[in-house]
Amino acid sequence: MKGIFITFEGPDGAGKTTQINLLKEYLISKGFDVVLTREPGGTPIGEKIRNVILDVENKEMDDICEALLYAASRAQLVKEFILPNIEQGKVVICDRFVESSIVYQGYARGIGEEKIEAINNIATRGLVPDAVFLLMLTPEEGIKRKKNSGKLDRLEMEKIEFHKKVYEGYNRLKGKRKNVFEIDATLDVNLIHNKIIGIVENLLREE
Amino acid sequence: MKGIFITFEGPDGAGKTTQINLLKEYLISKGFDVVLTREPGGTPIGEKIRNVILDVENKEMDDICEALLYAASRAQLVKEFILPNIEQGKVVICDRFVESSIVYQGYARGIGEEKIEAINNIATRGLVPDAVFLLMLTPEEGIKRKKNSGKLDRLEMEKIEFHKKVYEGYNRLKGKRKNVFEIDATLDVNLIHNKIIGIVENLLREE
Repeated sequence: MKGIFITFEGPDGAGKTTQINLLKEYLISKGFDVVLTREPGGTPIGEKIRNVILDVENKEMDDICEALLYAASRAQLVKEFILPNIEQGKVVICDRFVESSIVYQGYARGIGEEKIEAINNIATRGLVPDAVFLLMLTPEEGIKRKKNSGKLDRLEMEKIEFHKKVYEGYNRLKGKRKNVFEIDATLDVNLIHNKIIGIVENLLREE
Repeated sequence: MKGIFITFEGPDGAGKTTQINLLKEYLISKGFDVVLTREPGGTPIGEKIRNVILDVENKEMDDICEALLYAASRAQLVKEFILPNIEQGKVVICDRFVESSIVYQGYARGIGEEKIEAINNIATRGLVPDAVFLLMLTPEEGIKRKKNSGKLDRLEMEKIEFHKKVYEGYNRLKGKRKNVFEIDATLDVNLIHNKIIGIVENLLREE
């Protein structure tokens, strides 16, 4: 049996980490083999690339350079981790994937969504998630939640206007793809979790 | 007056560094403002990316990841260094550029030349060198020269078959582009230098 590939998307502070961990525990309790990963990073080489992307010293980073670094980390993750685990029949859950690049670099930074899609079609070798859970939150609410939780990294320090663009970018994306499931991130944690397991169980039945 | 952009290409050991330095000295003696750079690297962010690419520890690096890292370093170099210097009227000389990626990643590693061109058209924002000096050398001669000069890095340790593919890749490229000037790297150093200054003086006259 082939595994399935699930990703979580949404603005910072939407609760992705909480939902990923709840889904993982649930699937393990049902006897599934589950592996988690994150972007950028997820492999030894990807973590080195992640350090370059998120280093607060690198203020001069060009937007296209940043987009290519995300794609490089992703190419390594797909080849070394995601594809082999899917082949072994596991449920692979990834915190952010191509959709983040399309929204953050393509739309919010203004590089263009098509350019980011072109780069990432090469990086992923055409791999598409079985389900993308998009946890949606207004930018104001997202920043407020994140600030309460500790230190902000370089991307998180970007001003509120950028977070508004990210919100718009996700809104532009959600209608275009059949595999994107939008969920209101202000709902109760357990309610969100139950929506997600409903969709995942349906996917696992189809496999 | 706008500057010009010159790149040097060719297999390892072909004498690029020697010719770049000779050209630089010559142009300075004629009153030109000359800046040198290299790939991957050439900017603080690019040097961090270079360290990831050339680190001998990163044996597991995926070919597409590698190609995207080269492109990321290049995007930063074009934006932060090459374009501003051309705008200031300088002669910008770069040790390797897009053609290296097309040959090494696109052809020799088998990713496909079109994919590498697509990625790099985005990375360079369409910037094309005024002249590409391609110093050609058979792979056997190239490896012999390099071994005599000291330690080999990860890419240089690749086996001879890879170097043969690089040689083929450069041969495939040279006929396709008007801005590529092929020079036999086994000729006398000063003879090569004089060929190069002949072509550069012609370019500077056209500016």
